Amino acid sequence: MNFRTEHDTMGEVQVPADKYWGAQTERSRNNFKIGPEASMPKEIIHAFGYLKKAAALANTELGVLSQDKATLIAKACDEVIAGSLDDQFPLVIWQTGSGTQSNMNANEVIAYRAHVLNGGDLADDKKVLHPNDDVNKSQSSNDTYPTAMHIAAYKQAVEVTVPGLEKLYKTLVAKSEEFATIVKTGRTHFMDATPLTLGQEFSGYAQQVSNGLRAIKNALVMISEVALGGTAVGTGLNTPKGYDVLVAKKIADLTGLPFVTAPNKFEALAAHDAMVELSGAYKRVAVSLMKVANDVRMLSSGPRSGIGEIIIPDNEPGSSIMPGKVNPTQPEALTMVCAQVIGNDVAVSIGGATGHFELNVFKPVIAANVLQSGRLIGDACVSFNDHCAAGILPNLPEIKKHLENSLMLVTALNPHVGYENAAKIAKKAHKENKTLRDAAIELGLLTGEQFDEWVRPEDMVGSLK
Amino acid sequence: MNFRTEHDTMGEVQVPADKYWGAQTERSRNNFKIGPEASMPKEIIHAFGYLKKAAALANTELGVLSQDKATLIAKACDEVIAGSLDDQFPLVIWQTGSGTQSNMNANEVIAYRAHVLNGGDLADDKKVLHPNDDVNKSQSSNDTYPTAMHIAAYKQAVEVTVPGLEKLYKTLVAKSEEFATIVKTGRTHFMDATPLTLGQEFSGYAQQVSNGLRAIKNALVMISEVALGGTAVGTGLNTPKGYDVLVAKKIADLTGLPFVTAPNKFEALAAHDAMVELSGAYKRVAVSLMKVANDVRMLSSGPRSGIGEIIIPDNEPGSSIMPGKVNPTQPEALTMVCAQVIGNDVAVSIGGATGHFELNVFKPVIAANVLQSGRLIGDACVSFNDHCAAGILPNLPEIKKHLENSLMLVTALNPHVGYENAAKIAKKAHKENKTLRDAAIELGLLTGEQFDEWVRPEDMVGSLK
Amino acid sequence: MNFRTEHDTMGEVQVPADKYWGAQTERSRNNFKIGPEASMPKEIIHAFGYLKKAAALANTELGVLSQDKATLIAKACDEVIAGSLDDQFPLVIWQTGSGTQSNMNANEVIAYRAHVLNGGDLADDKKVLHPNDDVNKSQSSNDTYPTAMHIAAYKQAVEVTVPGLEKLYKTLVAKSEEFATIVKTGRTHFMDATPLTLGQEFSGYAQQVSNGLRAIKNALVMISEVALGGTAVGTGLNTPKGYDVLVAKKIADLTGLPFVTAPNKFEALAAHDAMVELSGAYKRVAVSLMKVANDVRMLSSGPRSGIGEIIIPDNEPGSSIMPGKVNPTQPEALTMVCAQVIGNDVAVSIGGATGHFELNVFKPVIAANVLQSGRLIGDACVSFNDHCAAGILPNLPEIKKHLENSLMLVTALNPHVGYENAAKIAKKAHKENKTLRDAAIELGLLTGEQFDEWVRPEDMVGSLK
Amino acid sequence: MNFRTEHDTMGEVQVPADKYWGAQTERSRNNFKIGPEASMPKEIIHAFGYLKKAAALANTELGVLSQDKATLIAKACDEVIAGSLDDQFPLVIWQTGSGTQSNMNANEVIAYRAHVLNGGDLADDKKVLHPNDDVNKSQSSNDTYPTAMHIAAYKQAVEVTVPGLEKLYKTLVAKSEEFATIVKTGRTHFMDATPLTLGQEFSGYAQQVSNGLRAIKNALVMISEVALGGTAVGTGLNTPKGYDVLVAKKIADLTGLPFVTAPNKFEALAAHDAMVELSGAYKRVAVSLMKVANDVRMLSSGPRSGIGEIIIPDNEPGSSIMPGKVNPTQPEALTMVCAQVIGNDVAVSIGGATGHFELNVFKPVIAANVLQSGRLIGDACVSFNDHCAAGILPNLPEIKKHLENSLMLVTALNPHVGYENAAKIAKKAHKENKTLRDAAIELGLLTGEQFDEWVRPEDMVGSLK
Repeated sequence: MNFRTEHDTMGEVQVPADKYWGAQTERSRNNFKIGPEASMPKEIIHAFGYLKKAAALANTELGVLSQDKATLIAKACDEVIAGSLDDQFPLVIWQTGSGTQSNMNANEVIAYRAHVLNGGDLADDKKVLHPNDDVNKSQSSNDTYPTAMHIAAYKQAVEVTVPGLEKLYKTLVAKSEEFATIVKTGRTHFMDATPLTLGQEFSGYAQQVSNGLRAIKNALVMISEVALGGTAVGTGLNTPKGYDVLVAKKIADLTGLPFVTAPNKFEALAAHDAMVELSGAYKRVAVSLMKVANDVRMLSSGPRSGIGEIIIPDNEPGSSIMPGKVNPTQPEALTMVCAQVIGNDVAVSIGGATGHFELNVFKPVIAANVLQSGRLIGDACVSFNDHCAAGILPNLPEIKKHLENSLMLVTALNPHVGYENAAKIAKKAHKENKTLRDAAIELGLLTGEQFDEWVRPEDMVGSLK
Repeated sequence: MNFRTEHDTMGEVQVPADKYWGAQTERSRNNFKIGPEASMPKEIIHAFGYLKKAAALANTELGVLSQDKATLIAKACDEVIAGSLDDQFPLVIWQTGSGTQSNMNANEVIAYRAHVLNGGDLADDKKVLHPNDDVNKSQSSNDTYPTAMHIAAYKQAVEVTVPGLEKLYKTLVAKSEEFATIVKTGRTHFMDATPLTLGQEFSGYAQQVSNGLRAIKNALVMISEVALGGTAVGTGLNTPKGYDVLVAKKIADLTGLPFVTAPNKFEALAAHDAMVELSGAYKRVAVSLMKVANDVRMLSSGPRSGIGEIIIPDNEPGSSIMPGKVNPTQPEALTMVCAQVIGNDVAVSIGGATGHFELNVFKPVIAANVLQSGRLIGDACVSFNDHCAAGILPNLPEIKKHLENSLMLVTALNPHVGYENAAKIAKKAHKENKTLRDAAIELGLLTGEQFDEWVRPEDMVGSLK
Repeated sequence: MNFRTEHDTMGEVQVPADKYWGAQTERSRNNFKIGPEASMPKEIIHAFGYLKKAAALANTELGVLSQDKATLIAKACDEVIAGSLDDQFPLVIWQTGSGTQSNMNANEVIAYRAHVLNGGDLADDKKVLHPNDDVNKSQSSNDTYPTAMHIAAYKQAVEVTVPGLEKLYKTLVAKSEEFATIVKTGRTHFMDATPLTLGQEFSGYAQQVSNGLRAIKNALVMISEVALGGTAVGTGLNTPKGYDVLVAKKIADLTGLPFVTAPNKFEALAAHDAMVELSGAYKRVAVSLMKVANDVRMLSSGPRSGIGEIIIPDNEPGSSIMPGKVNPTQPEALTMVCAQVIGNDVAVSIGGATGHFELNVFKPVIAANVLQSGRLIGDACVSFNDHCAAGILPNLPEIKKHLENSLMLVTALNPHVGYENAAKIAKKAHKENKTLRDAAIELGLLTGEQFDEWVRPEDMVGSLK
Repeated sequence: MNFRTEHDTMGEVQVPADKYWGAQTERSRNNFKIGPEASMPKEIIHAFGYLKKAAALANTELGVLSQDKATLIAKACDEVIAGSLDDQFPLVIWQTGSGTQSNMNANEVIAYRAHVLNGGDLADDKKVLHPNDDVNKSQSSNDTYPTAMHIAAYKQAVEVTVPGLEKLYKTLVAKSEEFATIVKTGRTHFMDATPLTLGQEFSGYAQQVSNGLRAIKNALVMISEVALGGTAVGTGLNTPKGYDVLVAKKIADLTGLPFVTAPNKFEALAAHDAMVELSGAYKRVAVSLMKVANDVRMLSSGPRSGIGEIIIPDNEPGSSIMPGKVNPTQPEALTMVCAQVIGNDVAVSIGGATGHFELNVFKPVIAANVLQSGRLIGDACVSFNDHCAAGILPNLPEIKKHLENSLMLVTALNPHVGYENAAKIAKKAHKENKTLRDAAIELGLLTGEQFDEWVRPEDMVGSLK
């Protein structure tokens, strides 16, 4: 491999000749060989593109950076945003906890790519832009990395996570309407209970997803606050007056998202409670989806010796040894995602709780986990929706059989014969393997006509939607 | 011990003669000897008092319960609410996952205490009220226990957790104002960094607590929705028309809190995502408080070989062997609480994720953990506030010494000499153990006058509050 | 209330006149009003009894404490061990993170109780023993509290946790033998699969519990190492030569458990990885028990519309509204315990990870969570065993029906007709709602005789035990 | 892109013409677009290479597979093991929870690659090997995936995780010896305490790592047990007699690792407690490393206003804004890894706890998290060792200054003047900012000569190693 010589304040470093990155990126690459290469989330890289461009524009507007330099920076940033420089970001999550090295990676790549865009050569000793003095102007890793986290997290939430959940939500609502009149046995404690409609069951799932969406949106309010302008410790040292408000406005303009400057930069650097809160909202959603997915697989269990009240699409052969077996693979993928998201939340909490003084240095691990959770939830919802939920059908014969057999229809008799007599009927029917009707009549507690009038499953499901 | 005979649908049970509880409570007491006795949180017991009274009032208003019975129920409920019947609730958290047995404990105690209030005797075979048919009328464990959880959690949040946090918040704001002009060295990565004021540092803590309060309040919106009216599986079977809205109104009236009926009862029985969300908010707060408490203990470390920039109150001798030692015990108690709350949140998440079909049967473990977290946060904030935060003083000589020594004041020179020259100055000063001023002059990068004009810590802390 | 005046190095303190505790206990009681009173686990208190006695005996044997004083200390310690002084330990978990205040509580109660046992009066200004100089001789909180944790954890493990698990293990083995010949349908992915015996299913549960016991025993090896002798920071300052080995021996003698002195006292004070490991073993057991309990409740589901292959004891009426309903309450209690233990493990991990320098100051929260987990597992296993597992019966008609219906018996044909043809048979049978036999013959893949010879469920369950 | 037509029991599928995978892999690729492509860990893929080869060899030896077929399978497996077919495994973690699709991916790639190795063409309709009937012979996903997990986890543990920890352990031991005579102030509660040597401090770290290694080795005992031979539900259906023992032996031979057949296959398929246990051991190690890394960064804090008792290597410029700043980046990377591992453990626990009946269907998420944890710990230990721990130097002037100032040297006076008088000395010295010696003399408690004789830090550090 060919190398060129770059330097930083510690001295010279040999860098692969054809790469845009410089000395500090190369140092990090060599010093942190932990896990797979280039694991720093791409969403963070792209977010750096937005914020470096926004900073350049704000710096120019406030008179501390020339228009020419800003134009060059913006051009290189556009490439970062578009993803065409992704292979210039080789660093890993497991680096300095401030993400300084990824900030410098961005500074170096933007500065040197701009130099080339400007007609220069990577091997030039003197380049048109300085990574620190120009690209990082009015910035510190301490405020850029948190800002990149918030940009990445917000964008992903509204582009991947929320749309995935909303897609699933719509399907669940549609199914709850489609199944509105299918009366079936309820189950509590995994045991037969009083009836409800299949639509009511699905309406509960829809409500869960809807509530989860609300929680994510609440959390995004805090994510919309960006740290940029705080620089090293939150004081805004080396920034021009008005910079923090303006740069947040620029980010908002570039992304089309409602970013504003954080009201307290000390908090915004030293704590990442906003990310902890978003992770918590994702975890809450995971808890909901675990329930929904478990219900779907259990309701579809069988085909002959399970509960079997719904039919889900057959997508693949289910077994390498059992011919003809079909399994609820989409619910399985979704529940695995949920387990991951709940675990990620613990990693985020520990990272969030372990900041000290003016800086939290668990930034990359926090970012990586939140972004993985957001992505997995969004993708898994779409997958589960398209390949499973949207195709769910009721298994009417099974539903009917279970409903008619249910001893818990006896509950309708409480107001007529009292809880204790009703219990006698149920127990007799169970013990003697009879129908409730026969047991009730035999006990002399009511007539067959009364039973038929009082015990009507379709009247037991209320008028609730 | 003397016993009397009670019965339920399974048969007769011997119950301690002087206790108000009945057959089902006694069965549970004998069948679940897990952990310490009577561990079901008292907040849940008292909440049952509110909801049983509310249900009785609503039942009467809707014509399904006599006024006399309602009056009796209400009287007994008032005693439950007041805590004077606490010793009649011997059951544990680790019972049926629906909390049915604690619901029956409430039904039995209220029915039998009402019988005695009515002039009856506990030993009477026939009592004035039936635990199921009267006290539990228009209810099921499946909707009462979730309602009790929400009442207990909401009340505790507004009576214990939020006030504790607000008390600490006010102190932190006051300290941030008191310390507004004390310039000190910042620290990032646990290393010396550019300066800020001690007030700014505390303003970050205050912002963290303030954001946490917002998160709790967001979560309480969902907690204000009560399941009551859903009965067995959410359909509202065996409830009179309009009951769900009315009973929520009654609860709101009795508690003075904004409870409303849940929009979807199926969700409200089968999932406890609202509790998961509140637990998540408490966890977020714990993450914040862990940071604040750690900073306080680290800033006060010493007395001679630590950081020592603040002085915290000496409350107790710190060591059984080291005479004269004083330790940051309040921050320690607070951080232990935070560890507990983060752990509790995982237990709640698992419980929340593991509901099936029409009922989540991890209700008591969810309730117990959320209530422990809420209580511990509230109490620990008050303790930390009163015995530590409120008494924090700056250690001005140490602060001054550290500030003057800080090599990171060099950052002020970036705009004048560039990042790389500034780094040369800092490195020379560090290596040769000199002042920045001397190193800068020796390097010929600026004059002493320029240094004195440019490097002024008090000008480096911005105008941010 | 009457008070007497006690003092410590910070001055005088008013202490309830009739209590054995002294100034430092009273300070802690007033300074840490967090959560319920007296929450420090009793197991820790009793362990202090053992270690204070052991220390006194070792001190005397090594010539640094008079025989008279040792005898007095031992007498008071015996009362602590017996639990008769439990009400003299009012402190909470949420105190100083070293547990110093509980160590001083023990020192004060033992010193002053000994004074009374010696004929003195609590109001005497001068007492026969000094809490620090005598009772705490050759000790520091820093080595006593970790030692108390290990004594408490080990004793509880062998007296509560392990016996509970072993009881359940024996039942599961017995059931696996009892059910050895009951062939039933297997289930994978919650879907019908090839057959196994009910005994084989239970043998898997037994193996899980057995493996968990092994993990606990592995973890106890580290718990058997005690920190005592390390005193303040691990150096053993102010201890006589040979003390650490001797005092561990004394503890071993007094408890009958294999305690030894820790090989490295610095680790033993600064880290509680041994407790983290024990908590991890408990968590592993919780993971196993969650699986077993879930299977039991799902296998017993019904009574008419579930899986219903086993019958579990009916212990209580299951519903306050649904008459005659019986629920799997013991599995529910057990799974709630498992959720708690998994959450506790996270609290313990965070506490364990957050020690600094020579001392971990999350000791009480670590101790409290490990001890709660150990107790809950032990108690819940006994409860689940006695009220559920021991009474499990097979539901033979259901088992037979499910087995005969199972399409997955087709797997036995793989070696004869190949995976793809076998799949054709299964799919045809499923689609046309036929038996496998009919489908196979119709497809012309084999004769009825061949089918009967090749597809024999009882031949498909192997010879594995 | 060109495609060829493959089929499975569900019908025809278009597969990229140049890929070795077949119909079922392609179905999964299309049905599970969740997160980044090809996320199934490579360690699992390679492990499938070992086990498919072992199965082929055992099948041939037991007479159920021709020698020719076995030879072909083995040849293709060798390529899988070598990693040269990595790009033929496009599937993700988030698929069916049994990992069936990755098992089929292996079956298809091996079958079709063997066909090509045998001179065939990928487009041939009829291929020399059948993915199910030949490559998967005597196997099911249900026993292969768990076996692959164990092979992958064991290999990684002994090749990456354990060596990384051992490397760090050796450095810590060497440092503890190198620093054996450097007496320094101890710190408990982050406060000055009695002295110890820097070597003793490092010996504690070494002990932590050593104990962690022991825990991993304990856990590996269970990982050495492989499920292969259990096939579909654990009964070993469709396997020749003696197969399970033989195939484990083959795996042991091929890997050089001590694999044996699991004693109970039902447990081995339905539960992954062994993986949960290994994850728990990794979590325990993470807890230890978090402590060690935190101490290192705190001890090296400064350079002028921190604790500064050790000097760690300067590896990179630490700040994009603060010139000359150097940060403890390796400890930061390591602590981020620890946070991740603790979070991963929760994901694994939830996955482990949520198996049902004969199969746990959280296999891929369990595998992925355990393997990530193992890899990150191993890599991070090497990185931390090479770039930080190995280069740690004592900062002798700071150590000396702190030691001489320490008020806790007063503890040495306890045996001479008693705890209370010693406290008076320390308090007077602290309050009046004097030396202990002066304060002691002024109080008239001892002479200067006595002080000099009794208070000798080097005598206070014991003889403990």
